Amino acid sequence: MNNIFYTPPSRITDQRMELAGQEAHHAANVMRYSDGDQLVVVDGEGNFYRGPVIQVNSDSLVARVREHWFEDPPRPELDLGLALIKKRDRLEFAIEKGVEMGVRRFYLFPSRHAVKTKVRTNRLQTIAMQAMKQSLRPYKPEVNIAGGLSDVIQKGGERKMIVAHQGEQDITSLLETLKQEPRLTAFIGPEGGFTSGEVNKIKDRGGEAVSLGAKRLRAETAALKIVAQLT
Amino acid sequence: MNNIFYTPPSRITDQRMELAGQEAHHAANVMRYSDGDQLVVVDGEGNFYRGPVIQVNSDSLVARVREHWFEDPPRPELDLGLALIKKRDRLEFAIEKGVEMGVRRFYLFPSRHAVKTKVRTNRLQTIAMQAMKQSLRPYKPEVNIAGGLSDVIQKGGERKMIVAHQGEQDITSLLETLKQEPRLTAFIGPEGGFTSGEVNKIKDRGGEAVSLGAKRLRAETAALKIVAQLT
Repeated sequence: MNNIFYTPPSRITDQRMELAGQEAHHAANVMRYSDGDQLVVVDGEGNFYRGPVIQVNSDSLVARVREHWFEDPPRPELDLGLALIKKRDRLEFAIEKGVEMGVRRFYLFPSRHAVKTKVRTNRLQTIAMQAMKQSLRPYKPEVNIAGGLSDVIQKGGERKMIVAHQGEQDITSLLETLKQEPRLTAFIGPEGGFTSGEVNKIKDRGGEAVSLGAKRLRAETAALKIVAQLT
Repeated sequence: MNNIFYTPPSRITDQRMELAGQEAHHAANVMRYSDGDQLVVVDGEGNFYRGPVIQVNSDSLVARVREHWFEDPPRPELDLGLALIKKRDRLEFAIEKGVEMGVRRFYLFPSRHAVKTKVRTNRLQTIAMQAMKQSLRPYKPEVNIAGGLSDVIQKGGERKMIVAHQGEQDITSLLETLKQEPRLTAFIGPEGGFTSGEVNKIKDRGGEAVSLGAKRLRAETAALKIVAQLT
């Protein structure tokens, strides 16, 4: 299995599956799939489907479903609450690498120290989807823009939460426990770090503050460091 | 301490230190350091020096040395043997993030599956130096181009070596032992992975093969994943 494609569950039945839009275009015109070629499709919810292409149209590609298998979600299912990174290429890189390593959802939010910036959500979502396919993952990643830290905390519901903050207990001593959590949200602050008020908001919800080491890390570096350790 | 500058040991005495070239220009013209401002300088070998600027010339900046302290090298001292990554921005990102997380030396080498490519070593070295200063580290990183995997193995001498290879023992079970090593070289293959012949070259030297997980990772993602876990 070298390539996978994505299509939503609504386009998959017991017998057949259909790619549409960009996915169909990519499969037919870039990758040159044609009748009889074996196609592997994920539905973004953990399911893989495989079968031969039976029809190539101008804007869709249809394949038979011959095999189906399910992959459990990664544990912990990891969401990342990330203060907005000003530089576009750094933000895009954090999202691409995060998804490749296993992040499920990103919540980007303006923070006290973070500069407000225009975010092209569609572009970020496309990057996330490409990274999902690159790493052959069957779960659809999400890039969400949140109004602020409080919104993300509230959306987290009963998830375990941790926040990166200098001077706290080193994350390495907690890794084994954290990896047992079914669902985990990790918060990474802006370049200037979270304020203690922001950290307390997370602690008040039962969250834990952790240190990623003594060195100053850029926001996207901190994000990748925490994700690499938790996945 | 928000900014550090680099100057080689030859430009530092007990009494004074001197920035030259780009570092002097950056300090004087971009950061606007002038007489009396406190300057922090690293020599790339673990030493920090602090003292007031006493002279700003057109191509150099001189400061008194009032304080000196030494920082032990990180343990393990981590080198990365990295098969050449074709896409320039991905290679540059791996180097920047690697240095920020604590990599000391990069050995870039052509591999069986790696596409040969022109590498702008000067640019990569500049990126590495900026990342050193960004993360306030006192050890000068090196970006080396090697002739091939065997060269890097030979240069490694008595260092502990590990190589990322799918299907091997998971690295997490070995992390505690690996973090005790004083010096460690981690090898990351090209997109297609190392050949078993390449992996055996490292094993023959006492190296260990480790898996970074079941998912397919791009070369730079694998590099960051291994570095984040070891530093």
